Amino acid sequence: MHLISYDIQHDRLRLKAAKALIRFGLYRVQYSVFMGTLDLGAQKDLQKELDAISQLPQWTPSDSILILPLHQYSLNHQITLGNPPEDWDMIQQNLHTLVL
Amino acid sequence: MHLISYDIQHDRLRLKAAKALIRFGLYRVQYSVFMGTLDLGAQKDLQKELDAISQLPQWTPSDSILILPLHQYSLNHQITLGNPPEDWDMIQQNLHTLVL
Repeated sequence: MHLISYDIQHDRLRLKAAKALIRFGLYRVQYSVFMGTLDLGAQKDLQKELDAISQLPQWTPSDSILILPLHQYSLNHQITLGNPPEDWDMIQQNLHTLVL
Repeated sequence: MHLISYDIQHDRLRLKAAKALIRFGLYRVQYSVFMGTLDLGAQKDLQKELDAISQLPQWTPSDSILILPLHQYSLNHQITLGNPPEDWDMIQQNLHTLVL
């Protein structure tokens, strides 16, 4: 299980990153925060894609992508204030039934 | 150790949340992502403040705040692409030397 979040100023670059994350099966839990399960191969491939994005000329010095592997502990204790995403129940169910 | 991220549309409400997070000693690692250590008392107090923010009239149905307790595993394996925040080394050192 991973959490990946980004700060990317350039619209098209940000969209490129979002599309890659969704293509790798991650769920958008907030506008710039994604969660999901990646096996080691997928993790490496995704990281390579994101790294390539960070090498593009539109990438600015203040841009960043955070890749954070999560432990089951985090999923068991997370709290969401406000309305979770529409498909949150499904996401949570998926996250909880996947082996880390 | 916690990661707290938000999606809040209203500028003043978002600023209110950011100020609360910083006042509780969290570091801003991205524009809407904060990390830091909270003892149980602080966690409860902060959660109460954030919950109060989510009850204000400017809060919209698509707004959310994610509170995610992190395990040492996450800190040991995290990756940042791009330039980390200016004080990232200090933040990391602090995060790593704090008992979860």
